[in-house]
Amino acid sequence: MKQPVGIVGHRGYSGAELIRILEHHPHVTPVLLEHREDAGGHSPIRNRPGRKTLPCTAEAVRNEGLVAVFLATPPEVSMDLAPAMLAAGARVIDLSGAFRLGTPDHYTAWYKEPHTQPALLAEAVYGLPEFCRSRVPAARLLSNPGCYPTAANLALRPLVEAGAIDRAAGIVCDAKSGVSGAGRKPSLKTSFCEVTENFSAYSILKHRHVPEVLMISGLEEREFSFTAQLIPIDRGILETIYFRATVASAADLVAIYEKQYAAEPFVRIYNPGHVPDLHAVAHTNFCDIGVTLDARTGRAVVVSAIDNLVKGAAGQAVQNMNLMLGFAETEALL
Amino acid sequence: MKQPVGIVGHRGYSGAELIRILEHHPHVTPVLLEHREDAGGHSPIRNRPGRKTLPCTAEAVRNEGLVAVFLATPPEVSMDLAPAMLAAGARVIDLSGAFRLGTPDHYTAWYKEPHTQPALLAEAVYGLPEFCRSRVPAARLLSNPGCYPTAANLALRPLVEAGAIDRAAGIVCDAKSGVSGAGRKPSLKTSFCEVTENFSAYSILKHRHVPEVLMISGLEEREFSFTAQLIPIDRGILETIYFRATVASAADLVAIYEKQYAAEPFVRIYNPGHVPDLHAVAHTNFCDIGVTLDARTGRAVVVSAIDNLVKGAAGQAVQNMNLMLGFAETEALL
Amino acid sequence: MKQPVGIVGHRGYSGAELIRILEHHPHVTPVLLEHREDAGGHSPIRNRPGRKTLPCTAEAVRNEGLVAVFLATPPEVSMDLAPAMLAAGARVIDLSGAFRLGTPDHYTAWYKEPHTQPALLAEAVYGLPEFCRSRVPAARLLSNPGCYPTAANLALRPLVEAGAIDRAAGIVCDAKSGVSGAGRKPSLKTSFCEVTENFSAYSILKHRHVPEVLMISGLEEREFSFTAQLIPIDRGILETIYFRATVASAADLVAIYEKQYAAEPFVRIYNPGHVPDLHAVAHTNFCDIGVTLDARTGRAVVVSAIDNLVKGAAGQAVQNMNLMLGFAETEALL
Amino acid sequence: MKQPVGIVGHRGYSGAELIRILEHHPHVTPVLLEHREDAGGHSPIRNRPGRKTLPCTAEAVRNEGLVAVFLATPPEVSMDLAPAMLAAGARVIDLSGAFRLGTPDHYTAWYKEPHTQPALLAEAVYGLPEFCRSRVPAARLLSNPGCYPTAANLALRPLVEAGAIDRAAGIVCDAKSGVSGAGRKPSLKTSFCEVTENFSAYSILKHRHVPEVLMISGLEEREFSFTAQLIPIDRGILETIYFRATVASAADLVAIYEKQYAAEPFVRIYNPGHVPDLHAVAHTNFCDIGVTLDARTGRAVVVSAIDNLVKGAAGQAVQNMNLMLGFAETEALL
Repeated sequence: MKQPVGIVGHRGYSGAELIRILEHHPHVTPVLLEHREDAGGHSPIRNRPGRKTLPCTAEAVRNEGLVAVFLATPPEVSMDLAPAMLAAGARVIDLSGAFRLGTPDHYTAWYKEPHTQPALLAEAVYGLPEFCRSRVPAARLLSNPGCYPTAANLALRPLVEAGAIDRAAGIVCDAKSGVSGAGRKPSLKTSFCEVTENFSAYSILKHRHVPEVLMISGLEEREFSFTAQLIPIDRGILETIYFRATVASAADLVAIYEKQYAAEPFVRIYNPGHVPDLHAVAHTNFCDIGVTLDARTGRAVVVSAIDNLVKGAAGQAVQNMNLMLGFAETEALL
Repeated sequence: MKQPVGIVGHRGYSGAELIRILEHHPHVTPVLLEHREDAGGHSPIRNRPGRKTLPCTAEAVRNEGLVAVFLATPPEVSMDLAPAMLAAGARVIDLSGAFRLGTPDHYTAWYKEPHTQPALLAEAVYGLPEFCRSRVPAARLLSNPGCYPTAANLALRPLVEAGAIDRAAGIVCDAKSGVSGAGRKPSLKTSFCEVTENFSAYSILKHRHVPEVLMISGLEEREFSFTAQLIPIDRGILETIYFRATVASAADLVAIYEKQYAAEPFVRIYNPGHVPDLHAVAHTNFCDIGVTLDARTGRAVVVSAIDNLVKGAAGQAVQNMNLMLGFAETEALL
Repeated sequence: MKQPVGIVGHRGYSGAELIRILEHHPHVTPVLLEHREDAGGHSPIRNRPGRKTLPCTAEAVRNEGLVAVFLATPPEVSMDLAPAMLAAGARVIDLSGAFRLGTPDHYTAWYKEPHTQPALLAEAVYGLPEFCRSRVPAARLLSNPGCYPTAANLALRPLVEAGAIDRAAGIVCDAKSGVSGAGRKPSLKTSFCEVTENFSAYSILKHRHVPEVLMISGLEEREFSFTAQLIPIDRGILETIYFRATVASAADLVAIYEKQYAAEPFVRIYNPGHVPDLHAVAHTNFCDIGVTLDARTGRAVVVSAIDNLVKGAAGQAVQNMNLMLGFAETEALL
Repeated sequence: MKQPVGIVGHRGYSGAELIRILEHHPHVTPVLLEHREDAGGHSPIRNRPGRKTLPCTAEAVRNEGLVAVFLATPPEVSMDLAPAMLAAGARVIDLSGAFRLGTPDHYTAWYKEPHTQPALLAEAVYGLPEFCRSRVPAARLLSNPGCYPTAANLALRPLVEAGAIDRAAGIVCDAKSGVSGAGRKPSLKTSFCEVTENFSAYSILKHRHVPEVLMISGLEEREFSFTAQLIPIDRGILETIYFRATVASAADLVAIYEKQYAAEPFVRIYNPGHVPDLHAVAHTNFCDIGVTLDARTGRAVVVSAIDNLVKGAAGQAVQNMNLMLGFAETEALL
């Protein structure tokens, strides 16, 4: 029999993607939790009859026996809801940035608001399975990684650990995202006529995902330049990463990746000189990574690509749920 | 009375843009020269009756008294046509890469084919008016700059000359272009279903526009990393340029630009911390430049934006024609 | 010396298009009137220094001597502003639906609100120049046609007048529009992720533009089926019109159009069997019309295409202004 | 153990979609058959290791024991391959138009080429399961319906059978399709820059899918007007169908549909006055149908939407395969 799991924020793009994935999961069944914050507006997934809906209350979660609750909500809502969901006996997987950074001060510095749940912040487990897998199964509160940091850290950390990057010369991460990464709330910035036939940079050098990249990759802030940019597409993140290599060839960098990710089901490494585009990862939980290196100058370029709503949000959240509930890590994701 | 000027390659996107611009020019009138290479296929500009068409021959050019001929053709066609057009008495403005690099060897190294007109290559004047204006009026053969180099050089050269860049740490230029930059010939890479909802990098670290950037900006190849990428839009180039600054603030960089471009009609500098998007320059001959700098780390980001078919091709070609024929530089371009 | 004309609603898409067109007009210069309703938000046209701005008051209009004021505003705002602008001595060109229908009752039936200016409604001149040109020059209050009705009426009226349509069998107008037709105010319906890779119908059989089509075309409501649909593009309207013809061939229908529009600068008729697409009219004030007819069945299809922001709004408004102020009708529009 | 099934044309869009669906099928496993016609060019589905590839020969099909072969190929290739595949013991599901029409003459009239397999044409079973289900299980050669006819016939046939349409007044089907419907071979018509920000009609009143609609819906050619149009999106078909109703309300039409489709897993009927858009059906095997009716005029509008690559091609082909091989009809499709 399938176990019930809750989704708060199911009218948003990440929430809708959670429904899509969980509807094909053999061991759990999604239950939609109606929270006042996202009342109004139809769901992006329509015409799927028979979905169970409950109020988003501790009582409903307990009575229904939800074993886990996904919070596809803004950070302030996640901070508000997490304690009650945990108290009701559910394990919590939070897709917001509320529980990703190490301390309340660090959170406040980047999110510009106080952290209201410092004890939970201390307890939360950061869930990038490829590097934090051992701590995930026992997590009560799982903090799902940000979309940009997922693509950046899977590309950067193996190279940093292997010493393959000349860090003194600096690392550039030029990141591009589809519009769904900005959420579903209407705004002029995400209106069709403003986005189509356009391309724009935002949060240059100060995006709140930067500390998450530093935390996992091991880089220092002064070494790292990050720019986020909006592509006129629905979904996908592609990051073009530049650095001076301490190794001689693209093959050397590929070898580092292949050693690191040999057993990983969701990371695919390309042959030297080949890089992914967004169609390669759309609607999948894969992170695809490719490397080019100019041997004459020692300059390297790594391209890392994910679907921001899958490996960058809902897919990785289910990957973490699978680990937490003891299912095969790839269940419903291949 | 208006003087006739010829356009070869008028069925391509740059050629069509030349027609659009020249139809509003008060002193010249466009004549379409039919070259065998682009026979077949309708023009992207339709339903404009009354355009004069001639065969693309020296005889027709001479008999018609064309004062200038635009070559919106591939480099090998431009090398083939330029001598005859010049011999027929027309001045030539070539939009291809045939006459941009300094020597036949340099050309062959990047374009992978021999240069068949070394004497003309030596004579050709590179036409980035903001830096080469004095030589343009007397040019017989004007080489119009490439699209990527136009945006890159307008952003880089003032900073390089002012010593505002820590060149030892390297400069990254992450460049993105609309699909019209790839030309109008059908290919799988530019098919709608392959491009829409996608984003892809190509010619990483080895794009043939790199030497043009080095030639004008004054940078060395080992200092410079360049990646070209395809945005799912029709037109526009946005380049995100990263470096370590030797000055303290974005305002210092902006001051360098403002001094350099105070009298330039087609370069617009943004206030510190603000950067352009592609809508700001679409269908215009402007290059818009904005700067961000993180004072704690000294890392700077410059964003440079143009319309690849206007300032990156046809518009700049008309700007050069205006200088060559003694018209106001901005004629038909504002 | 150029005469000043005002634009209210210059931050909207039609208003921005008015600025673009009028900046190239040899006889008038645009002045931006700041109305409280559209405060906040940048203009879609940026980086054009030197535009004059005034408060949207009768006093400013009178003191500045504005000879005309364009209202690119919602109908209720137009009803509110028109009397004051007229009293201040300016002629008014209203781009909303406020003054298009014949009577207050008719207005209320379709716009679902009372008409607050019945006297002005009675006075207003409907400005589809191709059919109402004689009344335009003397108009004090000019009502600029709706976008859908412009494309529909230019296609339908000549055929209705010529008796070329079997009206008893009914006429279908399947209309498609780019998203800019919905205005610039953010909403879920016009958010990028909701529109891209989508296509949707709205206001089926009850769009408020229907009575405008009937009024000019001469058709009866029971004969006419109209559906509006959203194309995932910025601009353009294409209408596919179906009917049973009483003539024998596409050439017969084309002949009717050619006779009607022989002297019209902004209507282009295609050869029999050929129809326009949206690229043919983008950024132009043309309405392009093409006809197909199946001789075996007598069923005909007419395709009518315009740019909704030009011939469907700002361009036609300038065409009307040219007629009202005594300039050449095509000034700034070719 | 899974049974092997072959896919010819796996580098095309329908072929790639077949792979995607069959990779999740519990009872069959896809084998890629390499046919000379589609050599060259990568597959739209990349980075999926472990797919088995065979030459497209009768010998390979027999030796490998393929129980079925999908032909996602042009009609002339399907006519060429079908006899050999059948002779090798495989059942054939053809996605082209080769075997859809009743007679060789009928085929030649619409496809403008001779039919080379008249015996197979006579044997072929047309596979629109909602109306032809009983004949599918025993079919040796299954002809999978065209994309436009699938959406049209599911909407039209129940109403025609119920006599709910005033056929004398004519029926209009204004059809719109995403670009993937045109196949993957590069052409100017499907180049990105020609399609983006555009909308165009083609094959007006003479599309080769028309006879398929007539064949299944029961309409006569003189009653039916059909236009195909290209939407600047990847996938999806939306058809807007107009007629004069003989019933009084949208609810009456909905009742007819609900009775017809009560047990159908892949047809969803909307409440009266509501219609589908393309997001509702994207990446699904559903056909969604909605109805509006203006009671004053008796004019009705039906909107029918499918994903052209799923219910319009690969999904329906798998639905037919499920019926032919005795699996649950919805296997791998929900």
